[in-house]
Order: sequence, then structure tokens, then C-alpha cells
Amino acid sequence: MATVPFHVYDTTLRDGAQQEGMNLSVADKLAIAPLLDELGVGFIEGGWPGAVPKDTEFFRRAAKELELRHAVLAAFGATRKAGARAWDDPQVRALVDAEAPVVTVVAKSDVRHVERALRTTSAEGVEMIADTVRFLVGEGRRVVVDAEHFFDGFVFDPAFTRAAVAAAFDAGAEVVALCDTNGGMLPDRVTDVVGELREALGVPHGRDASAGDPLLGMHAHNDSGCAVANTLAAVAAGCAHVQGTVNGYGERTGNVDLVTVVANLELKHGLRTLAGDGLAESTRIAHAVAEITNISPYARQPYVGASAFAHKAGLHASAIKVDPDLYQHVDPTAVGNDMRMLVSDMAGRASIELKGRELGFDLSGQGELLSRVTARVKDAEAQGYTYDAADASFELVLREELAGARPGFFRVESWRTIVETVAGGGADADRHDADAVAEATVKLHAGGERLVATGEGNGPVNALDHALRNALTRVYPQIEKFELIDFKVRILDAEHGTDATTRVLVETSDGQRSWSTVGVGPNIIEAAWEAMIDAYVFGLLHAGVEPS
Amino acid sequence: MATVPFHVYDTTLRDGAQQEGMNLSVADKLAIAPLLDELGVGFIEGGWPGAVPKDTEFFRRAAKELELRHAVLAAFGATRKAGARAWDDPQVRALVDAEAPVVTVVAKSDVRHVERALRTTSAEGVEMIADTVRFLVGEGRRVVVDAEHFFDGFVFDPAFTRAAVAAAFDAGAEVVALCDTNGGMLPDRVTDVVGELREALGVPHGRDASAGDPLLGMHAHNDSGCAVANTLAAVAAGCAHVQGTVNGYGERTGNVDLVTVVANLELKHGLRTLAGDGLAESTRIAHAVAEITNISPYARQPYVGASAFAHKAGLHASAIKVDPDLYQHVDPTAVGNDMRMLVSDMAGRASIELKGRELGFDLSGQGELLSRVTARVKDAEAQGYTYDAADASFELVLREELAGARPGFFRVESWRTIVETVAGGGADADRHDADAVAEATVKLHAGGERLVATGEGNGPVNALDHALRNALTRVYPQIEKFELIDFKVRILDAEHGTDATTRVLVETSDGQRSWSTVGVGPNIIEAAWEAMIDAYVFGLLHAGVEPS
Repeated sequence: MATVPFHVYDTTLRDGAQQEGMNLSVADKLAIAPLLDELGVGFIEGGWPGAVPKDTEFFRRAAKELELRHAVLAAFGATRKAGARAWDDPQVRALVDAEAPVVTVVAKSDVRHVERALRTTSAEGVEMIADTVRFLVGEGRRVVVDAEHFFDGFVFDPAFTRAAVAAAFDAGAEVVALCDTNGGMLPDRVTDVVGELREALGVPHGRDASAGDPLLGMHAHNDSGCAVANTLAAVAAGCAHVQGTVNGYGERTGNVDLVTVVANLELKHGLRTLAGDGLAESTRIAHAVAEITNISPYARQPYVGASAFAHKAGLHASAIKVDPDLYQHVDPTAVGNDMRMLVSDMAGRASIELKGRELGFDLSGQGELLSRVTARVKDAEAQGYTYDAADASFELVLREELAGARPGFFRVESWRTIVETVAGGGADADRHDADAVAEATVKLHAGGERLVATGEGNGPVNALDHALRNALTRVYPQIEKFELIDFKVRILDAEHGTDATTRVLVETSDGQRSWSTVGVGPNIIEAAWEAMIDAYVFGLLHAGVEPS
Repeated sequence: MATVPFHVYDTTLRDGAQQEGMNLSVADKLAIAPLLDELGVGFIEGGWPGAVPKDTEFFRRAAKELELRHAVLAAFGATRKAGARAWDDPQVRALVDAEAPVVTVVAKSDVRHVERALRTTSAEGVEMIADTVRFLVGEGRRVVVDAEHFFDGFVFDPAFTRAAVAAAFDAGAEVVALCDTNGGMLPDRVTDVVGELREALGVPHGRDASAGDPLLGMHAHNDSGCAVANTLAAVAAGCAHVQGTVNGYGERTGNVDLVTVVANLELKHGLRTLAGDGLAESTRIAHAVAEITNISPYARQPYVGASAFAHKAGLHASAIKVDPDLYQHVDPTAVGNDMRMLVSDMAGRASIELKGRELGFDLSGQGELLSRVTARVKDAEAQGYTYDAADASFELVLREELAGARPGFFRVESWRTIVETVAGGGADADRHDADAVAEATVKLHAGGERLVATGEGNGPVNALDHALRNALTRVYPQIEKFELIDFKVRILDAEHGTDATTRVLVETSDGQRSWSTVGVGPNIIEAAWEAMIDAYVFGLLHAGVEPS
């Protein structure tokens, strides 16, 4: 008999949405679900119909609007109330009404929670599980039981916890997911507990399970920093179902990051877990989900983070050139990511050469040029520039050293910016003055003309940006598409207060791609100006405009 | 014989500094080291003297300026070059010249790296380790050897890797730290490899080691999302030394987060790892380090993250109030963190009452006032203010609500600042203009007079500060002692680029004490002005000047 396929069960839309600061609309959920399906998960838990009105609406619209290739939808809810009947409990009925093929019910498996939170007996606690599962199975649903506080409960009173899990299987649950609800487990304990439970209940190891066998699952949180390892330990100990969220979203420290778990299982254990080839798209998918949740991606995220395959050390660069596989734990293309070389003051000539190659410049054999660029980068970084986070400014340095001059599209004659409050405007309090206004004027030469333009803004940098645009757009209409999308200020050498050196990083987009530039100086406005000018020059260059 | 104490070895200043976007100055390193010492680590790896000029300077200044209570400094470097002698290698000599009591040398323990990166023989690879360690021990240094690519090397060619480790111990190394340099290990493999190595070399388990016994250590990276679990597995398998960084800083996905490791070992395994009571301060320490590195703290970080003990109101809220221990894996005060109920007015009022008490205001029983302050703080925080890092601004809010008006020393009529470049001044390049100059004018009323003054500066905020001083000093000579000693800018809501909201934090000193204030607004200059005005008002108040 064929073994059952491994279950990858995504709960981004339900448990992930518990994350601080996250608030998903129905439209957001309908946009995320197809991405999860593209990743190749088997199950998408959509929310809690009946308890959360938005989630009721999600299931109603999902039934009509979503066309999933791999995944089935799961409706999440709780077991019936104490002392009631499952078919009489409106929240349980709402799970059926959601018309998802799978229903997942959370069941208390720690006797302390049964007694103190539900305020009922352990016997009724078990019957609530059995009754609810029987009812849902009778309604034709595949049933997953989330055994809440399972591990803490097992440690405190294993007999009750075993009885709760056994009742779920006896009533027809396909899977019981063992939840480390408080997230405090460590892998060795997970290994022991899953092994003991399987032995006590006679549950086969996941790799040996056939259709109809009871299956155990793992639901991990990251409070000990071990969610991934706990999930791997549970799989090794016999679980055939893993729950998690994209980008590790979730309450407190988050749920386990499902992509990290799946990448480890597929690439390191050779286990087939996903349908289709979604793993090779997982970097793009994880970032696309982050766009919808509007939570900035975490650069250091394993596998899919922007920094996950970025190398900085000069120490390694020369060797990386020879043999990249000696310096990365997996091939980054397996998860749709890329190796990147960072340029920093630790960099030597080898990393500058590699960086050049990444940007499309073949510098091999140009020893003298490499030495010049390396020296210039080290000198600039000593002044406070950082090129790791400003590829576009680095490319302009490289082009200048290659060509003997910077690519030029305009010449700056002068600029000025004024920030002021209006005298007498609401100046009765000592600091709640009238709002300040900002204005800037730039004088440039481009296309054979002298261009003088003024811009206003809600701050001096914004005003300069507007003035620059007003001056240049007629000569370079490409500039209309440029937008400054991020602006970071770092005060270096902070002990000097407002006398300190300032570093400004600017990210600019043309709607298709974005690029980062850097400026440094004791004057924050001048540093910002420098980064903006780099941004415009780089943007024009890559828009195919010929330097003058 | 007494067992040797467990080693907690921090490499934030060396391997942590490899993180993308991080660039630590000597002053930054000198500010971070005392925080690491306060945490209670045993070793602080300061950098690579001889290879990185800033690091040479760090060790020179550290010897004079740092007074560490618990930790010793370690200088990091590489084994000697192939074919040389250790005492002839200037980089090895620089490690001795750094005058740190501990020297840590990275040694290639994967034969492929010896052959392909060092381009020498395996025999010379081993001799480079032995010779370098012998020389350093002969110079009176305690020596740690970082066995680079140890795990991958052991899997590929265990005989060479064992020989490399044995050579280090034979030459007198106190510790060999096993490095998962590429970060791809999983815990089960770590357990197996450490066990096999200990058995082959006869290294005792860490818990049984006596003075003089060889010790193994673990150096983990998080590329598989298992750095914490890998480190715990290594300790369980016999390692007595763990390396890591605060906040998990480091190249790619980062090094293991040292606070998470230590909290797990201390709180879950009952192992004593730190000197002093630093663990109970670790949340504050981790955030203080993040202020210096200027890398936004990660809210979902285990133990010390802002969200680590935050619960969304809902399912659990009422039960949490009854019995919080059923809903958190450890007591958050053990790491200096707090349980937070999100969307909870009660928690807000209680913490404001506590904060008031801390500042010397007894607010108990003043329910109406507390509600008013709480509402005002919540409203301000929604706009981007943060009072955690700006006690002085919070005190001014509290005084205003207590007294019905803000303490006032002067009234602002208007202010203006201009930043400009001089036309024609060296404007031949497109961005390397003449230096910009900044000037500011303020118009104030104080002491019955209208005060108009102008200041110049190297930036607009500096110019405003000078103008404010010039205007006020005659009326309030106390101001001469005030100095703006720190100035931080954070762009909130980054997706709006230069339109975004800006938060400015200012720290001011009067030579005796310092205080922090905050300003927020779309205009960076206006936000800075607001924080500076708070700073002057607070300073005058605490200098005993009567408000007008």
C-alpha cells in the first residue's frame, strides 16, 4: 500500500495573522492564498468562520473566487462548548457552513487549561473533542485536531493528554497536530515526547503510514528560538504533518517559518513535501506575501532573506571566486535566491572583482584598476560611506574609475533650501508653533541650458527633490518615473551631537526596479543631496540616456 | 578538582560586524564592550588587529579606556601564512601586539579549503595551526582556535579534520571552537559529529572538564534556522564554550543569538553560564546595543523582542489574567522583558503610574489624570513618538497634565534655517560642489524682551542650536553648560521616502547628567527643533530656574 503524502499545512492566514501589527483584509487573504498554493502547500488554513466576520466572508468568497491547484482550504475553530452538543453549537455549525473540505478544531490537551480556562472536568474536556470530531466527520469533513498546549500538558499530566489525542483519533480525526502553544520546547524534549506518544497510542511513523492510519503533526512557535529544529525533531520522531506560516508570522516570536522547514526537509533530508516546483520560487513568494502584509521582510531570514547568501568578508572572497559551493550551505537557486557580494572596508580586490562581475563589468586581469577602486572604497568607507547598502553609488565609483570621469547628465551651479515658520502663526505655546514650511531652489546646467527651479516640500530634502525634478524633467522626462521610496539617516560618531557626520541612504524606484545610493557629510542636507544626485545619475544611466 | 567554568564568548564586535549594512566605528565598539561585560560574558572578541586598522586602534584604546568586570578581551586573527614562520608573520605578531589576554586564531579544518583556498598541502595546513598556536602560547596568551568549516570538513574528510583539531590541542590551545561556517548544519548531525570527535580525541564532556583539559566550543550560523538548536546540541554533546553575537548579528543569516542560547541554557537547563545577573538585564542590553549599531531591533526576537511576551487580546485574554504562567514559556522578568497585553488600557495606566513613580511623581489614586496621560501617550505613540527612549519629554507631558500647562521659559515667535552652496564655487563636477553652509535665525520672547539671533553651523540643526543659544544665553546663562551630545534620526513609515514621518531623539548633557527628548514630524528640521526645545526646557527646569 502506498504511503500517504507528507502534509505541509499553512496557517499564515489564521495563526500568522495574530502577529503584532498585522491586520489582513479579506482581499489580502484572497491575494495571499494563491501564493501559498503556488508554493505548493497541501493545506491553507483560511481563518475562523463564525467567530471572525472577515473570515466568514473569506470562505464565502474563496469558494467562488479561488482556483487552487494544489492546496485545499481548512476552516479553523474550537471544539463545542462544555455541556452542549456539537450540532447545537453555532460556532461548530459555522465551521461546516464555511464549506471547506478540511476543518481544524483546536482542543485543549493540557488538563490545567481544561479546568482553569474552560472550567469543566477532564472527562468533559475529552468528550468535547470526541463529540465535535464525530459530528464534523459525519458532515463529510476531513478533520485535523490542534492539540493546544500539548507538550506542556504532556509533561504535567501525560494520561490526560494521551486520552485527549486518543479520543480525537477514535472519533475519526485524520491528523492530531501537537502544539507547542507557548513555544518553549527544545528539540530533545520534542523527540522524547513524540516517541512516547506514538508508542503509547500505536501510531505508525509518518514515513510508514498508509491511508487511514492516524497521523501526528507538529505546530511550533519560536519562543526558544528552536521552532525550526523542534519541527524537524518532530518529523524525525514520526510526525507526517507540519504547520507553519510564511515568513514565520505569528503571535509573540512567531510561528515556525514554513519555508525554512520545507527547505531543510527537501534539500537536506531529501523528503518530498511540496506539490510542484514552488520551493525554487520561494524567495519571490515570501517577498510577495510580505508586500501584501506590509511587514518589511527580515534580511537575515534563512534561505529567502535578502542577506541569506550575501558575503562580506574579504577573507573569503578570493576563495569564493574559485569555488562558491564551499561557501554556501545550499545552492541559492534551489530557493530562488542569489549569491551576492557586498563591498565593504573588509573587502579586498577579489570581492571588488566579484562585485563588478555581478554588476556586469569584467575586471579580471585589470590589477591596477582593481587596486585603485579598492583603495578608493576603503578611503570612502573610512569617511563613513558604506557601499554594502548602496550598490548604485558603488557602480558610479566603478564607472568613474573605468572611464576616468563620472557619467554626467547635468552640472550643479548651486542649491539652497530654507525651512521656516511664519512669524506670529499660533506662536503662543513654546514649541507647538505653526507648521514649518520648506522651500528649495536649484541652479543647474543641462542640455545646453541654465535651469533654475524652485520646489516646496514637507521637509528640506523633499523640497530639494521637488526642485531638482522641476529643473530636470523637461530635459530628461525619464525622471518623472523616479520615486524616492526610502530614506535612511545614520548619525556617525554620535558623541559630537549635531556636529556629527551624517550618512544618508536613499532608495529610488522607477516602478520596475529600485536602486540604493549613499551620501555622507557633516551637513545632513548635503549628504542627502549627494545621495539624491547619485540616484538621479544612476537612474538616467540605466534608462539608457547618454551622458552629456 | 573543580570543573572549569562554562565559556560564553561574544563575537559581536568581530563576526557580528560582518553583517550587511553594519559598520562599527572604534567609538561604537568601545561603547558596546561595556554592555557585553554587563551582560556577563566571559570573552569579548574585539576585532582583527593588524588586518583592520580600526581594530588595531580599538585594542590600543581598549587597553587604556575599558574597565571590564567580568570579560577578557580576545584578539582575532588567522594562522600564519603557508611556508612562513609564525614569529616572522606580521599579522601573527600584530595579534600579540594587541595585548589582549586571549588570542583566537581561525584555522582551516576542511582539507578542501586548505588545498583550494590556501593552495598548500594538508601537512602544511596542520603545521600552520601547530606553529601559530605554539608561538602564541609561548608569548603568554590563552589561545582559542576557531576550526573553520569544521562540520563540512569532518563530513568530507574526518581524518584531516581530527588531525587539525588534535594539532591545536597538542600545541597548547585552551579551546577549539567547532565552526559551522556555512551555517547549514542540523542538530542531529551536530550531536553525532561532536560525539565522534570527543571519542576519537579523548576530550572530556564539558561538564566533567577540569583545569587543563582540552575544551571544545561551538560557533554556529543560522542559515538553516537552527543556530540555537545546533548550539544547544553541541553543549549537550560536550562543548563547554559557546560563541555568538548579541541580536544574532552576523554575515548572511547571522551568527547564533547569544542571549537566546544563554537564556535557554540558564532557564531551561539550569546551567550557570554568565557572570553576575546580566541575564535579567538582557532585554535592555540587547536594545542598547541595537541603538549603537542603529539596526532596528527585531520585534519577534526570542526572549528580548518587543513582541516576545506580547499577547493579542482575544481567545486567551481573560485566562491570561487569571494565570499568566500557563501562557508564557518563562517568566519575562528573567530576561528583563515584560508581558504586554496589546490593546489593553489597564496595562497602559499601570505602566504610566510606574513610570511616574520612577520620575518622582506619585500618581496612585489619580485615576482621571492617569487616563488622560495614557490616552495622550497612546495618541502620541500612534503619531510616532516613543517615550521609552525620551524620559525628559515624557516628564514634560506629565507636568503639563498635572499643572494644566507646560513649564515655559520662552515663547517662540518664528525660526528659519537656510542651507546653501555658493554659486560657482568648484562646481565643475556634478556632485562634488563647494561645501554647503548652514545658517539659522530665531525670534523668541523671554525675560520681557524680544530676542533675535542668528547662528551658523555645519548643518541646519547645528545652526538652529547655535542661534537658540545665542538668543537665550544672556537671559538664561545656565544654557552655556548644555551640550547636545547625541542626535538620532529614524525614518518611520519608510515606504513614503522623503515624504515619510521622521523621529528625532536628542540627548543633552549639562556636564553632570544627561537627558533625552523626542520630536516627530514629516519635516526632519521641525522634528529636531521640537526635541531641542524640550531639551532646553527640561534642562532649565532641572537647573532650578523658575518657569516664567
